[in-house]
Amino acid sequence: MYAVEVRDHIMLAHSIPGDVFGPAQNLHGAIYVIDVAFMRTTLSADGIVVDIGRAHEALKAVIAPLNYANLDAMPEFEGVRTTTEFLCKYIFDAITAAARDGRLGSGSDGLERIRVTLNESHVARAWYEGAP
Amino acid sequence: MYAVEVRDHIMLAHSIPGDVFGPAQNLHGAIYVIDVAFMRTTLSADGIVVDIGRAHEALKAVIAPLNYANLDAMPEFEGVRTTTEFLCKYIFDAITAAARDGRLGSGSDGLERIRVTLNESHVARAWYEGAP
Amino acid sequence: MYAVEVRDHIMLAHSIPGDVFGPAQNLHGAIYVIDVAFMRTTLSADGIVVDIGRAHEALKAVIAPLNYANLDAMPEFEGVRTTTEFLCKYIFDAITAAARDGRLGSGSDGLERIRVTLNESHVARAWYEGAP
Amino acid sequence: MYAVEVRDHIMLAHSIPGDVFGPAQNLHGAIYVIDVAFMRTTLSADGIVVDIGRAHEALKAVIAPLNYANLDAMPEFEGVRTTTEFLCKYIFDAITAAARDGRLGSGSDGLERIRVTLNESHVARAWYEGAP
Amino acid sequence: MYAVEVRDHIMLAHSIPGDVFGPAQNLHGAIYVIDVAFMRTTLSADGIVVDIGRAHEALKAVIAPLNYANLDAMPEFEGVRTTTEFLCKYIFDAITAAARDGRLGSGSDGLERIRVTLNESHVARAWYEGAP
Amino acid sequence: MYAVEVRDHIMLAHSIPGDVFGPAQNLHGAIYVIDVAFMRTTLSADGIVVDIGRAHEALKAVIAPLNYANLDAMPEFEGVRTTTEFLCKYIFDAITAAARDGRLGSGSDGLERIRVTLNESHVARAWYEGAP
Repeated sequence: MYAVEVRDHIMLAHSIPGDVFGPAQNLHGAIYVIDVAFMRTTLSADGIVVDIGRAHEALKAVIAPLNYANLDAMPEFEGVRTTTEFLCKYIFDAITAAARDGRLGSGSDGLERIRVTLNESHVARAWYEGAP
Repeated sequence: MYAVEVRDHIMLAHSIPGDVFGPAQNLHGAIYVIDVAFMRTTLSADGIVVDIGRAHEALKAVIAPLNYANLDAMPEFEGVRTTTEFLCKYIFDAITAAARDGRLGSGSDGLERIRVTLNESHVARAWYEGAP
Repeated sequence: MYAVEVRDHIMLAHSIPGDVFGPAQNLHGAIYVIDVAFMRTTLSADGIVVDIGRAHEALKAVIAPLNYANLDAMPEFEGVRTTTEFLCKYIFDAITAAARDGRLGSGSDGLERIRVTLNESHVARAWYEGAP
Repeated sequence: MYAVEVRDHIMLAHSIPGDVFGPAQNLHGAIYVIDVAFMRTTLSADGIVVDIGRAHEALKAVIAPLNYANLDAMPEFEGVRTTTEFLCKYIFDAITAAARDGRLGSGSDGLERIRVTLNESHVARAWYEGAP
Repeated sequence: MYAVEVRDHIMLAHSIPGDVFGPAQNLHGAIYVIDVAFMRTTLSADGIVVDIGRAHEALKAVIAPLNYANLDAMPEFEGVRTTTEFLCKYIFDAITAAARDGRLGSGSDGLERIRVTLNESHVARAWYEGAP
Repeated sequence: MYAVEVRDHIMLAHSIPGDVFGPAQNLHGAIYVIDVAFMRTTLSADGIVVDIGRAHEALKAVIAPLNYANLDAMPEFEGVRTTTEFLCKYIFDAITAAARDGRLGSGSDGLERIRVTLNESHVARAWYEGAP
């Protein structure tokens, strides 16, 4: 399996209701360093997994609405616990949609796996991996 | 597959008998930066993989007996080659026991894969991954 | 010059008023990985710069009020632009006070320089360095 | 599954023909930090995945012909697009050959998976993983 | 002293004549991850060292002519040994010019030190630091 | 000021007598990732700080006696508390001697500052910096 992984980051504020979240029930925030890996068994006709420049652009576009945002105030996330796990899957779904629409350029259509990793700090990270 | 990974570290002394280990047959030591990843296909009722605070605590408890220890002097490791690979599996087994006992809190019971990585230096690491 | 540096992290929410801050004027957040370096020309009587265990504890105590907090709602920061630079100096002042009070244990009194670094993301960080 | 991973690096020059590669069609270069992971379900008779010292040596030998080289001038790569993905697979094939020849020492023969990762920069990397 | 540091990267090809450079006399290449630190004793009127967004843009503009370039073919570098040390100073001079021209926005004029670090690999880096 | 920094690592065992060291009074161990920075105001006649290949070799030679060693059993360290701070200075002295003997090749004689950093783990490091 071949893979290419690109990195970007976002800054956001949110709170997470539920006793299990302890102090994270308060409004606080995060900077997530985000890695997105694209995987396929064989390379595209251009000899690549995916166009790395367009992959970077697609990631930037996908995360733009979350950057410098307060998730608690976004109708899209009303009633949702925006845990790191949830955000991994949310970005995975958006990147998958970008791949389906051909927004990753050469290689968009042959992807078999995508993994989205959110690095929280030097001691914690989370990811979601699945078929697009 | 969702995953959450937490990090801690230990310092220990040991020697590893056997010609293949060259100078590591001498009593020497290591600081291992340890990453433990917890994986499951669906999130728990709380919308998480596992309670990250409790995962950190469980990891700390599991590695405490190895920290600042001379493994050569521990009855538990008599006749054992405490290679990095062995220690990955040893910590994996202990974390798996913690998960079975519910010590990881919400999410303890739905874990499908656990991976324990021991980062030795800037040029080497090892891991063990399996079903808990 | 000898130095010892310890690391911890915090998660917080804030907004920064002022046109120059662009989208950071919105309520957003950050996870800062924080490094604090302690420096002195000669070692203490114990042969160390500072007790590294107590340095970790002092750092944890100093940043606790900022962790999982919304700085906009803290009276202490009313009318203050809580830029990364400001937070470096704020933590520097608190660590310096801890050193003066002997809360760093052996070595508290001979420190000549302290540096506080806030790592924002994989592409940005800030620090403040001065005499305690 | 057990794994051991070793790291080294190479510096090379190359160009990549094809419109999709944009400015990479110019002769430019790269320093790749290379990680090679060796994986197996059970440990060798010596209690290891593979001899880590010999794994480091084998990696160094495999990449030597690429180091400080201009790939455009090497007959071996005539008519080939030496993308990062291609180079991952090229090094994978060479390491696999080394394993088959027993050049990794103890553990050479029981390997089930090998992964070669080329870290390009702080925002991009690629890998190839397969059975040796 | 306050500091803010930003990061970007470039890919280039070059050769370095002179026996001391061994195999680096061949045409080869590099990806440099570049950190630029801006330092000043007091903050600007906006409470910052420098506008971090504009610092990122200035760095990107400064390194653009070197990216995907063959330095051996650039008239500017004729007869020059483009060592990592040389490139640190070259980028330092260009960033200093940007600061003087006010291209870093708020804070451009009060900078006292600038440091440019070129990270070559996981085992080597170089930097140049001076007054702008 | 120009600088070049190289990296290597060592594994050792030791104990550190004294109540302030808590559990580190037990025989335990460490892997230190070691960075050595060489600094000078102007470049050598070859346009470099120091020959980076020879700097790597000199570092490797200097740390060889400590690698896979039990410091408690070395006459050289009898009655010495081999703290991380002490080891930074010990390696600094050895590298300085190598520079004085010309073992760093071109640039050995014009060095103005040397810094030795011992990275202990993801949360702690120490360094010593001085004139050679």
